[in-house]
Order: sequence, then C-alpha cells, then structure tokens
Amino acid sequence: MSSAILLASTQIDMSYLLPTFAALAPALDIRLGPDAGAPDEIDVVLCWHPAEGLAAALPRLRLVQSIAAGVDHIVADPTLPPDLPVCRIIDPDMASGMVSYVVWAIAHHHRHFGAYLARSAEGVWQESPIVPSRLHRVGIAGLGVLGLATARALAMLGYDVAGWSRSPKPDLPVGITGFHGNDQLDEFLARCDSLVCLLPLTDETRGFLSADLFARLPTGAHLVNVGRGAHLVDADLLAALDRGQLGAATLDAFTEEPLPADHPFWHHPGIIVTPHIATRTGPTVVVTQLLDNLARLDAGTPLAGAIDRRRGY
Amino acid sequence: MSSAILLASTQIDMSYLLPTFAALAPALDIRLGPDAGAPDEIDVVLCWHPAEGLAAALPRLRLVQSIAAGVDHIVADPTLPPDLPVCRIIDPDMASGMVSYVVWAIAHHHRHFGAYLARSAEGVWQESPIVPSRLHRVGIAGLGVLGLATARALAMLGYDVAGWSRSPKPDLPVGITGFHGNDQLDEFLARCDSLVCLLPLTDETRGFLSADLFARLPTGAHLVNVGRGAHLVDADLLAALDRGQLGAATLDAFTEEPLPADHPFWHHPGIIVTPHIATRTGPTVVVTQLLDNLARLDAGTPLAGAIDRRRGY
Repeated sequence: MSSAILLASTQIDMSYLLPTFAALAPALDIRLGPDAGAPDEIDVVLCWHPAEGLAAALPRLRLVQSIAAGVDHIVADPTLPPDLPVCRIIDPDMASGMVSYVVWAIAHHHRHFGAYLARSAEGVWQESPIVPSRLHRVGIAGLGVLGLATARALAMLGYDVAGWSRSPKPDLPVGITGFHGNDQLDEFLARCDSLVCLLPLTDETRGFLSADLFARLPTGAHLVNVGRGAHLVDADLLAALDRGQLGAATLDAFTEEPLPADHPFWHHPGIIVTPHIATRTGPTVVVTQLLDNLARLDAGTPLAGAIDRRRGY
Repeated sequence: MSSAILLASTQIDMSYLLPTFAALAPALDIRLGPDAGAPDEIDVVLCWHPAEGLAAALPRLRLVQSIAAGVDHIVADPTLPPDLPVCRIIDPDMASGMVSYVVWAIAHHHRHFGAYLARSAEGVWQESPIVPSRLHRVGIAGLGVLGLATARALAMLGYDVAGWSRSPKPDLPVGITGFHGNDQLDEFLARCDSLVCLLPLTDETRGFLSADLFARLPTGAHLVNVGRGAHLVDADLLAALDRGQLGAATLDAFTEEPLPADHPFWHHPGIIVTPHIATRTGPTVVVTQLLDNLARLDAGTPLAGAIDRRRGY
C-alpha cells in the first residue's frame, strides 16, 4: 500500500515546498491539495489552515504537521481525531526573526522614529523627547519559546520588562518580572507602556486584545500583536486609538490575511501593518523537520515539536 | 579670590543647565558664556564646541569638562594647554540610548521596514525577503564604551558581528570577531553588510568614511554614522549611494548642525537623517558629574571621565 504526504492549505499556495521535497526526498509521494488522490493513501498532512474535516476524512493519517510554530488553525477543527499527533516546526531562526521584529517595533515607538522618518523626508531638524530605555516598560503576554526569547532580548537592551503567562514560570531569566493568571493580569497590564502579544491562540485567548484589556493599560500605550489575528478585536483597537486610550499599534497578524484592501487598519495613522513577516521558516527547515518526524514515526520515538493536545499548544 | 564655572558653547544654548545647577549646587558661581567676567576667576569650563582659544585665555583653569561623551571639539583647539585635564561625561544611559538607536537602524534596514511602512500607508500587502539575523554581517568601527555595548547587543540579537579598532582589544565579548589596525581594515570592511561608525574623532579618523572606504564594503552596504559628522565625506556618500555602491545610510551626526535646509542629505531616498539624538545625557547627570569632578580636583584624586591627552580620546 502506498504512503503519501498531502500538502494542504485553504490560505496559501503550498507548492512552494515542492522543489525542496524534490531536492531532499525525491522518492517521496507528495500530493498537492485539494487533489489528494485516494484518502487511505495519505500518511501525513503538512499544512497551514487546512480545510475543516480534512484529517477526519483520512483513515490512515499518522501526523498533522504545521509548516510553522502556529497550530491553532489545525486544532480548531472539531472533527480532528483527539489522539492524532499534531506538530509545530521548531526553528532557531524563528526566535531571532521574532526578536528583531519586536525589538524594531519597540524602539520605533519608544524612540519616535516614525516622527524622525517623516522629518527626514521633509527636511525638518527637530528633536523628540529621549526617554531612557530603563524607563520604558514593556510587557510580553505569552512566555513560550518566542515570548521568552523576546523578553530576554528586550531586558538585555535595558528595557523594563515583565512577562505574563497563564501558569507561573519558575525559571524566568534575570531582569524579567513575572506575572501569571487572571489574578495578576491587572497588575501586569498597568505597567505596560508597550504590550507585546505572543500568546498561543486558544479558546481562552481569542479576543484577548479587547476594549476591556485596553482600558487597563496606561493611557497612550503601544500594542504589538505578533500573536494571531484572532487575539485582537479589530473594532476595539480602532476605538481605543481614536479615543487616545492607546497611542499606537504595530500589527503583523490579522483575522483575514492578506488584510482586505478596504480594512480600516490600512492608512490609519496610529497603526503599522506588516504582512505577517515577523518571522518565517524557510522551506528547507520545514521539509527537513517533516522528514525527521517521518523517521521518528517509523521508529516509534517521540515526535519533534509535538503539541499537548489537551492544552491545544 | 572667587572661583567660578563657565558654561561655554559656540553651538548650543548652555542655559539649559542653569536650573539644575540652581537645584543641586545653589552656592556655586556659574557664568554663562560669552560673558565670563574676569578671566582669572574661572576655575572650570563646562562646554560643547567652545570657542578656540578660550581655555588658553583662562589662567587659573583647572578642568575642561564636556557635557557629553565627545571631546574632539575641545582637543581640536591647538592653543589648549597640553596638560590641562579634559573630561567626558560617563553616563550609563548613554550606552542604552546608543544601543537602541543602532539596533533600530540595523533592524530597519535588514528587515526592510522602510518598505513596509510605505506599504502600510499605501494599503499594499507585500513581503520582502526575510534574511536570518545570523546572515546579516554588522561591523562596528570603534570599540570604546559605546561601540562595545552596541556590538554586544547586536551579537546577542543574533547578528554576525565584527568590531574594528585602532589597537587590538584582547577581551572582546563572545560572539564578536575582532579586527584592528590598518592591516586588518580591508578584511573587516569586506564583511560589513552594515557598517556602524562609533570611532572617536581624531586627525586620523577625520574623513574615515570616504569613497576609498565605501569601495571596500560589499556592494549595497548600509552605513550608520553615529560618530561625528566630520568622519564622513558628504559628497562621497552621495556618490556611493547614487552609484549603488552603498544601499542606504542612517546618519545622526553632521559637520554642520542643524543640518542646513539645502543640504542634499535631506529628502534623499537612501538616507535617513536624525537630529543628533542617538543618545543624550540629561542635565542632572552632567551637573552631578561636574560636581563630583570638582570634589576630586580639590581632593587631588583621579578625575572621572578624564581622557588621554596624547591620544585625544
């Protein structure tokens, strides 16, 4: 019986991976969705936002592998078999990409570089206030691999960094003040001149960035959303910016991507939109880790990047 | 005989320091230049770009104190008595300010944020290539306090960092490749996708950033000048950008400041101009360190921030 890998996405063109498969594993049977062929030939789904019901329709499926760190788009499917392994990609460059994005976003806001760029183009020599980094309070919501790397980098740069996570993190790096749980969320938010969302997307965190939360931030705070689009209530952000409750937002993830041309986030003077580029895993890393997990499946050893199906991340 | 402190500058209004002196040392006799009163009453000059010949005309002068890290504008005076102590300000926030400026400049270029900001304003969802930080080679010319802090921060962020200095630096932090002297300059320049100038300004380094140097950088390299304006040959930079030898420049220091309204750096699409704001020392730090050095003068103990008069920095 043949064994095949299905590349599936409702959002992006997965054919970008085909040359890498051809180079690294030319003997593998790779199917490009939606033409999967016979359902019982599919062994593994490699995907980004797969169609709902896809996994349940593949009787011999042994693994659903995301092409990136995010897996919420996979586990959101209510028909996903509960014991089916779901894996994310683990990529060291993911962290450095996220770190450079967030460090840029924080410095761009804190050091008023938006104003300086405008003045540079206009020929205006004018200073904005210089606030020492140690007086700019940054909060990182979500202390997973990317959240911790980002918090550590910002602390090393001299920012006053706190982190918030669902459960306590006992071994936080030096220089990062830890908060956890709903009980400590108010205290955390009250000291966020910039708030960075790096939470996983779960039923609990969907809509986390809402009017209620914005009201608990210092007036004029800066929001950086590098989590998922669904963390953010778009209308609440617009209202908070227009009221002055928030001062600026840097957004890299959106409920619908590409962000629709008529979305009010475009052209908004308080919002920087980037096209989900904070960090990205190259095709070689994706294919190499998939091949490694295929070998682990055959050997019966633990899979790399496997998520906890009960928690959903 | 009275003892007075003269605040002197040919470039800026030094009166910004008066409220801080009034608060921290109300009994001190502070004179605001150019009205120094009797020359033999002046004990200390606190200055930024003092008039040539000023120090030589003050017979009882015991110290010339800069209000910042730069002292080139003081030692450039050929009439400056050779044994007169010259001190710079040592300010921990200076390093964090410089670090946040340079980290922003490197990330802004390396991650194509200029293009993203334009697309955000225009409503265009379009990616630029993502190059891992470890593949972006940054060179720091000048490994003084600010150069070392900047190199260390960039290395921690995952960039491929090298440093160049006049003489060898035996104790470079891990992750920073060291080069020194004219013999190793070519090798250093050849691996600078971004070159950051943090050299002291001396006769040797004046005009360091010239056509000859730009030709030894990789094609399309990015120049960050956070040293002094006189490190840069302005016309050579414009020619190198227009020829494509350089890809971009981020400039915070200029030969004439404010940068004249008709200077071609303004409005140039490859140049970001900022008004000498990379880092700045607040008046409390300046006055506190001057008072400390006054006490050290009276006690005969070594001065804080004293430069080596033979080297000039």
